[in-house]
Formats: sequence, C-alpha cells, structure tokens
Amino acid sequence: MKSLFNKNRVEAFSDGIFAIIITLLVLEIKVPHIEDHNSPGSLFAALIKLLPKFMGWIISFFTVAVIWVNHHKLFKQFRNLDHGIFWWNALLLLWTSFIPFPTAVLGDYPGNDVSVVFYGSVMALMAVSFTLMRWYVLRNPDLLEETVDISKFRKGTLLSLVFGPMLYLAGVACALIHPYVSFAIYLAIPVYFIFSEKKS
Amino acid sequence: MKSLFNKNRVEAFSDGIFAIIITLLVLEIKVPHIEDHNSPGSLFAALIKLLPKFMGWIISFFTVAVIWVNHHKLFKQFRNLDHGIFWWNALLLLWTSFIPFPTAVLGDYPGNDVSVVFYGSVMALMAVSFTLMRWYVLRNPDLLEETVDISKFRKGTLLSLVFGPMLYLAGVACALIHPYVSFAIYLAIPVYFIFSEKKS
Amino acid sequence: MKSLFNKNRVEAFSDGIFAIIITLLVLEIKVPHIEDHNSPGSLFAALIKLLPKFMGWIISFFTVAVIWVNHHKLFKQFRNLDHGIFWWNALLLLWTSFIPFPTAVLGDYPGNDVSVVFYGSVMALMAVSFTLMRWYVLRNPDLLEETVDISKFRKGTLLSLVFGPMLYLAGVACALIHPYVSFAIYLAIPVYFIFSEKKS
Amino acid sequence: MKSLFNKNRVEAFSDGIFAIIITLLVLEIKVPHIEDHNSPGSLFAALIKLLPKFMGWIISFFTVAVIWVNHHKLFKQFRNLDHGIFWWNALLLLWTSFIPFPTAVLGDYPGNDVSVVFYGSVMALMAVSFTLMRWYVLRNPDLLEETVDISKFRKGTLLSLVFGPMLYLAGVACALIHPYVSFAIYLAIPVYFIFSEKKS
Repeated sequence: MKSLFNKNRVEAFSDGIFAIIITLLVLEIKVPHIEDHNSPGSLFAALIKLLPKFMGWIISFFTVAVIWVNHHKLFKQFRNLDHGIFWWNALLLLWTSFIPFPTAVLGDYPGNDVSVVFYGSVMALMAVSFTLMRWYVLRNPDLLEETVDISKFRKGTLLSLVFGPMLYLAGVACALIHPYVSFAIYLAIPVYFIFSEKKS
Repeated sequence: MKSLFNKNRVEAFSDGIFAIIITLLVLEIKVPHIEDHNSPGSLFAALIKLLPKFMGWIISFFTVAVIWVNHHKLFKQFRNLDHGIFWWNALLLLWTSFIPFPTAVLGDYPGNDVSVVFYGSVMALMAVSFTLMRWYVLRNPDLLEETVDISKFRKGTLLSLVFGPMLYLAGVACALIHPYVSFAIYLAIPVYFIFSEKKS
Repeated sequence: MKSLFNKNRVEAFSDGIFAIIITLLVLEIKVPHIEDHNSPGSLFAALIKLLPKFMGWIISFFTVAVIWVNHHKLFKQFRNLDHGIFWWNALLLLWTSFIPFPTAVLGDYPGNDVSVVFYGSVMALMAVSFTLMRWYVLRNPDLLEETVDISKFRKGTLLSLVFGPMLYLAGVACALIHPYVSFAIYLAIPVYFIFSEKKS
Repeated sequence: MKSLFNKNRVEAFSDGIFAIIITLLVLEIKVPHIEDHNSPGSLFAALIKLLPKFMGWIISFFTVAVIWVNHHKLFKQFRNLDHGIFWWNALLLLWTSFIPFPTAVLGDYPGNDVSVVFYGSVMALMAVSFTLMRWYVLRNPDLLEETVDISKFRKGTLLSLVFGPMLYLAGVACALIHPYVSFAIYLAIPVYFIFSEKKS
C-alpha cells in the first residue's frame, strides 16, 4: 500500500502546525511589569526595553512564513507520499515547532553568544531537514510528479544545503565577531528568500 | 510560474491564523490570586477588577472577526495569487498575530496613555496593510476576478485608508483628551463595521 | 449579495476555534511545584490536590465537544449564511472561546460560590447564543434548507432555551445549596447530551 | 439519521487538535532565568539542565505523530461515522489533548517515579481508547468499508491492546527498576511504530 498517506491531509496537518507556530511566537512576549500603573514614561521605557524581543519575533515570523512557502513549493512536486517522506516531514515539523523556544531565549538574552548560537543551530537543523527530505526523494524518484526535472531537483537539493544550513552555520560562526552580526544574518536569510522569490 | 500559490491553501493558512489569534486572546487573562480561597466576596471583587481586561478582550475579539470578514471579502475578488499578494498578506498576518500583545498591555494598564497609543498604532499598522495589499493589486489588475469593477475597487482602497488607519490614528490622538475616549473609538470601529455590513 | 459568506469557510473557521479551545483547556493546569524533586510522595500528593482542576477540565472538554456537535447539527440545516447568522455565530464563538477562563477559575477555587456562579453564567450565555441564532433563522426562514421542517425547528429552538441556558441557570441557583451540586449539574448537562443523542 | 456526522469534518477537527497538541508541547519549556544576562557559561549550563525537558518533548512529539498516523489509518477503514465512533474518538482526543501536562510533569521531575508512572498511565489510557474504538466498530461492522477484512481488523484490535496499553503499563512497571528504564520504553514505543510501519 504505497500511497497510504493522503497528500491533502498531510499538507493540511503541516499547514495547521505552521499556522499555530507563527501565532504562538507572540505569546513569548510577556507584558512588562511597572510599578506606577499610570506612568506613561515607565510604560514607554518598558516597551522600548522589549525591542530585542520584537526583533526576534519578526525574524522568526518571516522565517516560518518562508518555511511555509518552501514546504508548499516542495510538496507541489510530490506525486504521492510514502512513510519516508512522512517521517522526514515530521522531523522538519519537529524543528519548526521548536522555533518559539530559541526565539524566546534570543529575545531574553539578545547579547549572549550562547543564545545566538542556539538559535542558529536550531535553524540549521530545521533547514537541513529540507535537504534530507529532498535527498530521500532523489533516491525514490517515483515519488515525484512526472513534470519535475530530476536534474533541476538535484541542483535544488544542493542549493538547499548551501542556502539553508550553511548560511545558518555561517551566522553561528559570526557570533565570534559580535552577536548582532549573527542577528543580521538571521534576518537577512528570510528577507533574501522573500525578494529572490519575487523574481523567480 | 505565475499562480505558484494555491489560493485555497493560502486562505486556509490565513483562516487558521485568524482562528488561533481570536482564541489566544483569552489566555492573556490570568486567574486572579486571592488569599482566602473560600471567600466569595474576595473572588467577586477580584473578577470585577478584571473588567478592563474583559473589555479589551471583547474589543479585540470583534476586531479580529471583522478582519476575517474583510479578508474573506477581499480574497473573493482575487483571481489568483502571486508573490506580491502573498507577502502583503503575510504583513497583514504579522500585525494581526501581534494583537494579543497590545490587548494584554491595554488590559493591564487601561488608564495609561502609552498602552492606548500602542494599541491604536498596532491596529493602524494592521489596517494599513489591507490598504497596501489593495494598492498592490490595483497596480496588477490582472490579479482581480473579471467581475470586479476596477473603479469601485479603487474607491474601496481609498475608503479602506480612511476607515482603517485614519480612524485608528484618530483614536490614538484622542488619548490626549482621555484614554477612555480612545477605548470607545477602538470599540466603535468593529461595531460600525458589523452594523454597516448588514445593510450592504 | 445574500450569500456573501462561504458556508464551508465559516464552518472551517468555527471548527478551528473549537479545536483550539478544547486543546487550550489543559494549558490552564500548571505543573505543581514541590520542594524535594525526587520525593514520590510529595509529587503524588501535589497531583491529588489538582483533582478539582482535572474534573473542571474534563467537564469543559466534553462541553466543548457537545457544542461542536450541536453546531454541526445546526449548520447542516442552513442553506446559506447571511451577515445575521455570521454575527450570531461570532457571539457564540466569543462565549465559547472564553470557556478556558471560567474553567481555570473553577479549578483554582472549586469550593467558592462565585467561581461556580461565574462558570454557569458564562455557559448560560454561550447556550443562549444558540437559541438567539436559531431565533434569527426562524425570522429568516429562507436561510434554511428546504428539507427542514419549520415547526420542528421552532420546537427545537424552544427546547434549546430550556435544555441550555435554563439548565445552566438552575445549576447556578444550586450553588445556594452547595457548590458541588452545581458541579454535578454542569457535568450532567454534556453527559445527558452525549447519551440522549445516541438514541436520536 | 445514521450518517449524522460528516467524516471529513470529524477528521479535520481531530487533525486540528493533533496539530495544536504537537505544537503546544514546546510551550511547556520555559526560558531559563540566569543572573548574569551576558554570561555564555551560565546560559549554556542552564540550557544543559533543560535536557530532560527536551527529551520529554521529543518523545511526546513523536508519540503524537504516531497517534496521528494510527488515527489516519483507522479512519480510512470507516465507511461512515455514528455517535458511538464520534464519542469514542472524543475520548481518544481527551487523553491526547492531556499529553502536554504529563510531559511537562516528566520534564520537571525526570527522576521521580510518580511522574514516570503518571506519564505512562495517561499514555495507556490514550492507547486503550484506540482499542475501545476498534472494539465498538467490531460490534457494528456495517461502519467499516467493504474492502476491510473483518478477521484482520479483529486481529489488529487485539494487537492494538498488546502494543498500546500493555507496553505502556510495562513501562510503568519498569519504574520499579529505574525511572530511566521507563523513559527508554516510552521512547522505544513511537520509534518502533515509525520503523515497523516502513516495512508494512
């Protein structure tokens, strides 16, 4: 029974998880506590202090949106799903569903090397799951739609390794220079995807 | 590949996010802590003190419901989706998914000008995202269904600027008079939409 | 434009909200804090103390499941949706999405009359939203499927008033005798629905 | 009215609940608090201390994924749904939606026998719900698709009793030896399912 999995249900299940993750990110930003409830100055200062959290939230929001787009593009190329794809997809969902945690750590300790390395490593693990899923499909090419060009798909798999995990690991390495350089790279990755897609 | 995005999947993804946001709002209301667990008087008093939070929750609930209706109406007019609409839609979802946070701040500091200004500004950013998405579509009119009247759509875009961000900024400005005047405007905006639609 | 609302999307949106509420209920049960991490006795005692919370969670879980079933049954009888149904449905979703809060209050203060009255009142408001939606449809009978027997629907509307809000208000009144009598009634209502349905 | 329940809506509702549970699991891991915000050493040590939580989260993630797969496989065999299946399914969803709580307890008290026994007992209750649902269907065989082999389904029901609740209770019993033996069994169960399926 090859096509045990209904592609629509797996897509809907994955989409549900992406929608929940992207929405949960904001729950990690807690309302600041100020002594004088009616002091506009204290509340303004407290909100300003949350800026790194807002920044982390925006980066993770667009990262998850880019994951959704890449997932959507990839699944369009699959003819049917077997257990292999299902479980490589589950691994991708595992790392994606973990994103709210490193985002919260980054928001609480924006200047700490460890939080920057932790965030980038989780993202690299998420990104490499895409490569692993593509690699699995390359070894089982009957899972692909007939219209898909295998050599193009192979090239895309290699590119997914370079522009995914490698870029994130580069971001991790940049924590040696300054945490904010890593921050900039983590922001640049989804932004690059968003604008490069427009041209494609 | 123009119609890369499947309209149904983007709608389902957006609907999922709206459903999650509208439900998460209540999580920001925490159970009050009272010393004497069995004292009805203390618990009643503690619940009464939560009234501003309940108020903020109801305003945000109906605001998100109105966003859903407007999103539904707008997407019905699109023939297909390109990267531009997808990312303008993502910007709208970004601000919408942020709503639980300013709602919680408003509930904790209902009499503080800054929380009132913050809430209204986030809502204005959310509302202007609708206008920006409409504006993008106006410059790419082949994205619209053939049955859509372009000049009516252009007028609707202008109206969305006036009745969305402008009204919210008016609410923000009213914080100068009294925070509760802004509160009243933030409540009036979804209420106006709900009743004006009925006639349309 | 009568059928502005796509029935499937409104059903999917409502189902999404019900699924989220039913799942969020458990988040209100917090892990107990014990001093000696490795003491089985303390952890066992701490879990036993959570029994009223588990009880409240189970009652609310089955209540939301019954709401889902009733919503499903009701919407099957609608031919198309207008603004009126949409907003009466939004009112029902408002009270339903609020359920995690009174459930958490009940779990924290199970022996307190006010929490019992609060829980029952929210449930009565939720239940009366069903009656109001049905009443609205009775005044706009062209919204119903042709196969629906109007006089039966009218009788069902009356019954929904008796077996919904009236029963919950009876439960509220019983708090005068003892909070646990109300508890028993709140549990009996969904249980009654579950077993009475089986016969229908 | 036998087929009162629309199978697709019940599947979508169940899938929504599974997607939410699998995503909520990570919310139970809280950002550690360290004194010196900029000390990489303290943050690293604090994250290492969270290892049992990460372990519990991964076990529960794959357990819920396996539940989804088993649910998907089982529902594919049903022709239509009656009240009985719906409410046995609701019981399964009840225990599944509870999983984040015993997971959090296990993460906080990994070396405590009671948390290990509690986790395994909840899982056994979840697993036995599958058996009960299958058993109900065996007594109402007209609910099954015609292509389903009844004697194979009966054998599957017996196996679901052995490989579900019995294995979890074995895990519970192993807490007498050492809590980590139980941990290993709880991890082995979904891993076994993932790899045994591949061959089927």
